[in-house]
Amino acid sequence: MNRSPLAPATFPELPVITGVELRIARAQYKTWDRCDLTFVTLAPGTAVAGVLTQSKCPSPEVEWCRRALVLGQARALVVNAGNSNAFTGSRGRDAVEAIAARTAGHLGCQPSDVFVASTGVIGVPLPIDKAEAGLDAAFAADPCGWEDATNTIGTTDTFPKAATTSAMIGDTRVTLVGIIKGSGMIAPDMATMLGFIFTDAAVGAEFLQAALRTANASTFSCITVDSDTSTSDTVLGFATGAAGNAPIGDEDDAGADAFVAALTDLCRQLAQLVVRDGEGATKFIEIAVSGAESDRSAHVVAMSIANSPLVKTAIAGGDANWGRVVMAVGKAGEPADRDTLSIRFGSIQVAQGGMVVEGYDEAPVAAHLQGQDVEIGVDLGLGEGRATVWTCDLTHGYISINADYRS
Amino acid sequence: MNRSPLAPATFPELPVITGVELRIARAQYKTWDRCDLTFVTLAPGTAVAGVLTQSKCPSPEVEWCRRALVLGQARALVVNAGNSNAFTGSRGRDAVEAIAARTAGHLGCQPSDVFVASTGVIGVPLPIDKAEAGLDAAFAADPCGWEDATNTIGTTDTFPKAATTSAMIGDTRVTLVGIIKGSGMIAPDMATMLGFIFTDAAVGAEFLQAALRTANASTFSCITVDSDTSTSDTVLGFATGAAGNAPIGDEDDAGADAFVAALTDLCRQLAQLVVRDGEGATKFIEIAVSGAESDRSAHVVAMSIANSPLVKTAIAGGDANWGRVVMAVGKAGEPADRDTLSIRFGSIQVAQGGMVVEGYDEAPVAAHLQGQDVEIGVDLGLGEGRATVWTCDLTHGYISINADYRS
Repeated sequence: MNRSPLAPATFPELPVITGVELRIARAQYKTWDRCDLTFVTLAPGTAVAGVLTQSKCPSPEVEWCRRALVLGQARALVVNAGNSNAFTGSRGRDAVEAIAARTAGHLGCQPSDVFVASTGVIGVPLPIDKAEAGLDAAFAADPCGWEDATNTIGTTDTFPKAATTSAMIGDTRVTLVGIIKGSGMIAPDMATMLGFIFTDAAVGAEFLQAALRTANASTFSCITVDSDTSTSDTVLGFATGAAGNAPIGDEDDAGADAFVAALTDLCRQLAQLVVRDGEGATKFIEIAVSGAESDRSAHVVAMSIANSPLVKTAIAGGDANWGRVVMAVGKAGEPADRDTLSIRFGSIQVAQGGMVVEGYDEAPVAAHLQGQDVEIGVDLGLGEGRATVWTCDLTHGYISINADYRS
Repeated sequence: MNRSPLAPATFPELPVITGVELRIARAQYKTWDRCDLTFVTLAPGTAVAGVLTQSKCPSPEVEWCRRALVLGQARALVVNAGNSNAFTGSRGRDAVEAIAARTAGHLGCQPSDVFVASTGVIGVPLPIDKAEAGLDAAFAADPCGWEDATNTIGTTDTFPKAATTSAMIGDTRVTLVGIIKGSGMIAPDMATMLGFIFTDAAVGAEFLQAALRTANASTFSCITVDSDTSTSDTVLGFATGAAGNAPIGDEDDAGADAFVAALTDLCRQLAQLVVRDGEGATKFIEIAVSGAESDRSAHVVAMSIANSPLVKTAIAGGDANWGRVVMAVGKAGEPADRDTLSIRFGSIQVAQGGMVVEGYDEAPVAAHLQGQDVEIGVDLGLGEGRATVWTCDLTHGYISINADYRS
């Protein structure tokens, strides 16, 4: 697979997070010449939070994490690439339990301290023997760096995706690093979105969970490649506490706002990297809706535009076809009034008050659409609600990847 | 544009509907060598009913029809092809009013007896001078047949789409003919779905409206090409009464059930023809969902599958990728239990009770997917709710048509 034209030039410099150790191994879930098992050990006392797919047909890994999150503590993360283990009945559940038990045996912790995520083909039970052998090999291996771990969690990703940020909590600087994989919300049956965030901040599990939910609402929940939601989407956050800041237990504690802002910044970077690796993507599209009756309503309208095949193909073609934006607003089902609707591409107003602007000149809009970064602004003219979402264009590349995937 | 590979071999033989006269003319809404204005006169006393787009940004034609339908009577239908007149502010409203007034002048009827529908590019006001000259030319022209009228309402359609059926009301046979255009629910900005149904049955307008709503729910509302809903979708039904049957005023009258059944049959034929002309379509897909908690819930799940780009591209590639069906069920948001879920392709069961069937053999499924007609069956195993919907595959043809349309 060619590297996405929207990929950053290089993998970022990422700091060590004290209390986090990365290792990789070859479980050979598929016949391929690469590592496909990532094993992360976390210092005792690490707090954990997570947001998981809302699919009604989730993988057993998702169900496992959902239960384990209740306890709020983590000692290990295991990520399998090449097999999602989704829709595999009791054999899938057995595999997850076996991985947790084997890991707990190695580390001398409880199975419920072990978090598991898998990505790959749906419907094939994860082979327990390969998982156990892979875990044993990883446990015996030397620690590795972020780039190796990021490559190992990937599947159809065309580049490794990671980001970092930091925040001051009182006088203490805390550091956050996130790694993520995914080429679509789901893309082929090989592209679940899995994201893992590590920080040395001392934060309580309950606060971490609230912070991750808040960050998620304006970041991961605001991206779409193809409107298809995975059975396995998982974002987990781990906080080792090694930075030694005054622990944050709730939102009123000093540094709480700074931490949430840093976490949100990191999640936005990671989310946008997933869009930049969207299957077949040649353009990165930001859609900003304002003037809606509520923020929720603005989000629905923005996602209706972001998921419209006609809008996405128009942008792929560099076509300033704003009529398709009108269509997508109209079909969203949210309050909208044609006669107060305004639309811009980049900074160029194209429609206002329910019709095209006087003396509309398509040339500057067409020039904006020639770039890799496209911005669509819609003002509904009804209220104060706003939302911003990110997507990519829909191209022949998407069809080629998905129509020819297993055949 | 090449004729769709899913098109019927020939245009059907269609009977005359007494009380309906068809004429066509060249309004030259675009620079093209074809008729683009269709003018239908209806005998005095003709009842009318309609279902219109639920878009929040409807065209002025849709708003006009919605108001005129309240009166329940029609003397004329005018259809413009090449310009949808949508999102054109007060100038668009002026154009519709001018068309109704000019037609009323020709026929000596009320403007509210005139129904107007337009399809084509969004955002360009329909030129009133061209519309009026076209109407005058049509009024002076000789009547034409169904095929000419069907071709004239079309835009990016690759074949003219029409169907007929009949029903016995008491001892009287009544006849129904429908014509339709559209290559997507909306396809490019040139493919609104417009459907027109004509019958010689004597039925009251209120009953006709109820019958059309009933028929619509299981036919036009059950098709999707690309999930994008037009600003202009319109289906109108006209009943001239010329058959002389005992008039049907409500659902308890003799023949009411037979009429609704015939109308539903006709609507289903027309709806399926639109899917068969779906942009870039190479396969016709029927999706039947059973075992849902309600019919409504089954419909939502079926449409989630039908709109999934990953399901549609898998079928385009002849790929028996049932994991994508699981994904689409899971993301629908309706009650579903992975462990009671069953999936079949054609008559071949692939998954049952939350996992792949014992000894699953992909070969017969792959063979089914090689055909032009593909059937996906999903049983949720929860209740008695069922729904069937129709769609087409998603191919390079769709991208070519829509990414390169105006550029």
